[in-house]
Amino acid sequence: MANSLKSTGKTPVLARQEQLGKVLSESGYSALILNPGASLKYMTGLSFHLMERPVVVFFTPRQPPIIVLPELEAGKLKDLNYPIKAFPYGENPASWGNAFKSAAQAADINGTRAAIEPRQLRVLELRYLETASPKAQFVSGEDCIGALRMIKHSSEIETMRSAVEIAQEALKATMPIIKVGVTEREIAAELTAQLLRAGSEPEMAFAPIVSGGPNSANPHAVPSARALQEGDLLVIDWGAVYHGYISDITRTFAIHKVENEFQQITQIVAEANAVGRAIARPGILAGEVDRATRTVITQAGYGDYFIHRTGHGIGMEGHEEPYIFAENSLSLAPGMTFTIEPGIYLPGRGGVRIEDNVVITKDGADCLTDLPRELIQLG
Amino acid sequence: MANSLKSTGKTPVLARQEQLGKVLSESGYSALILNPGASLKYMTGLSFHLMERPVVVFFTPRQPPIIVLPELEAGKLKDLNYPIKAFPYGENPASWGNAFKSAAQAADINGTRAAIEPRQLRVLELRYLETASPKAQFVSGEDCIGALRMIKHSSEIETMRSAVEIAQEALKATMPIIKVGVTEREIAAELTAQLLRAGSEPEMAFAPIVSGGPNSANPHAVPSARALQEGDLLVIDWGAVYHGYISDITRTFAIHKVENEFQQITQIVAEANAVGRAIARPGILAGEVDRATRTVITQAGYGDYFIHRTGHGIGMEGHEEPYIFAENSLSLAPGMTFTIEPGIYLPGRGGVRIEDNVVITKDGADCLTDLPRELIQLG
Repeated sequence: MANSLKSTGKTPVLARQEQLGKVLSESGYSALILNPGASLKYMTGLSFHLMERPVVVFFTPRQPPIIVLPELEAGKLKDLNYPIKAFPYGENPASWGNAFKSAAQAADINGTRAAIEPRQLRVLELRYLETASPKAQFVSGEDCIGALRMIKHSSEIETMRSAVEIAQEALKATMPIIKVGVTEREIAAELTAQLLRAGSEPEMAFAPIVSGGPNSANPHAVPSARALQEGDLLVIDWGAVYHGYISDITRTFAIHKVENEFQQITQIVAEANAVGRAIARPGILAGEVDRATRTVITQAGYGDYFIHRTGHGIGMEGHEEPYIFAENSLSLAPGMTFTIEPGIYLPGRGGVRIEDNVVITKDGADCLTDLPRELIQLG
Repeated sequence: MANSLKSTGKTPVLARQEQLGKVLSESGYSALILNPGASLKYMTGLSFHLMERPVVVFFTPRQPPIIVLPELEAGKLKDLNYPIKAFPYGENPASWGNAFKSAAQAADINGTRAAIEPRQLRVLELRYLETASPKAQFVSGEDCIGALRMIKHSSEIETMRSAVEIAQEALKATMPIIKVGVTEREIAAELTAQLLRAGSEPEMAFAPIVSGGPNSANPHAVPSARALQEGDLLVIDWGAVYHGYISDITRTFAIHKVENEFQQITQIVAEANAVGRAIARPGILAGEVDRATRTVITQAGYGDYFIHRTGHGIGMEGHEEPYIFAENSLSLAPGMTFTIEPGIYLPGRGGVRIEDNVVITKDGADCLTDLPRELIQLG
């Protein structure tokens, strides 16, 4: 795909639409139907919020995209440099079904298999689509769009590199306020402000996780009013958005001196992280990256405390293909981008996670993130 | 509902679950099935992200809630002060269907009508539910949960008042940087930082809209790199989140001196806004608030340029019931909270919107927002 984008000289969006048309034809789908989210933005350049007013776009192999949208959003279509057929609707929900009906007829999906994204499409849109095309089947087309989005063009990787730089700069600017007595929430607020100052888009993919002491043993903790104490581990999991692309990094800090076991598990996690980054290359299965990373932690006796997969794909979404879990038999290929984020979580005591963002290259993997990984004492 | 919460002395969440059980029994639904979002948080106190790993909770009339969730999120259940039956699953997606099957059996929904939220439930969760209970019907239960959530308890209104105060304070702190040459994006970044400093939760409901000059004619513009120019209208639409509750305000500013028509349309919008706030009271239809507001703008000759409904409900979601559009025959009742946000948008030139947050009281409406509404010159 990288080559086709380069050689055609077309805008990325138009080249992606043509590529998708080919994939749909080969897969036997009449259309891919997207609602607001990363895939829609990738295929159209358009951003919509996921609201009570449904928006869907039909992509078919042989005609321009067809969009159903609220009239008040129609202005977004004016500056597009490709054709699109619009079916706008007004404020009264009673009229929305007609717009879906006309669009589905134009897309000619009745009696066919139409692809959707089950992780993105809501029952709201599904019911409108089912009513508009009672004889269509709506099946997962995540494989089609996922395959396109998973292989990043070099320009996408450069954008991700900028998203990483913004995030790293923001963390450095936040570190001076981290000390005993400061709450998780205060650190999260300062980090968010610094992300914006460093150039992150205001609509962030996720709010920073800042978890200290026992809270750090919960991988998905929400920043609380708990103040940092001496001896705490402090996990910070944060990222920036730049031109729609995301970074997602985790580092763990020690608040003053921490107990020996905390230092040991940090070293184990750092080693697991290094093994994961070293093994990632074209032809290796995603599952092998997980297993190699996990083995380091298991052999050190902490296997039961590494309670999540090793990583997830990253790009226009914070979590996307490829997922790095033991059973995943997907073969890694150049242009794939994902996190490597082993962790050890000791319930009620503390946790460590070290998360980097890597891109598969021709013969290995580049690590986009380069902040130090050893346990740094703060506060 | 306000009274029942007060008199039982139970935690709000448990009282809400009991209330929901009654509503379900009366409506003939076997269960309400929620996935991550505002309703789930309202009914359980639990926050989950909407991820590739599905989470659902079954609420039934006669047993404690039943939850399907990833093992690594199970820690969130430990501190609940009410019973919940959990069906956790591991990292391999092949195993997830079994967790859904067991949970659906425990909830006993097969062969029944189970309520869902079409605006929130994804096809991902729906397909798991359909496979687990092939003879269940999954129908919209937005009326049930919407009716509960729409009437705010006095403690919820106090929380919303704080969310308004935080937002207003943040805007005041941002105003000094607004001047010719500053970009929309810079203003949005500063405003976001100020929201966090003023006490907004980091996970915001929406990123601020900052749109200047011609961009202000697009009600849903995204902050751009365009620098403010003399003669611009500047629309700022922003809000804070406090304890899960949202504020959502819009004010319009003049960058130095603006043309006469811009001043006139601001006066018309301010009058429409005032009429909307004045007419809102118990027993008035939601549609009447829209029509009264719209009439002011139509009679001034700008009806074609007020291209959206007058407002939307607000609470734990930025957009929720009641929606304020002409055809809505919902009768307003004490405890309902919504926006009143008329606007006039002159394509290619500029737009004005003035948005307040109101709560219906026993005999009228309280306006939570009190920033000046006249056109203030900045820059």
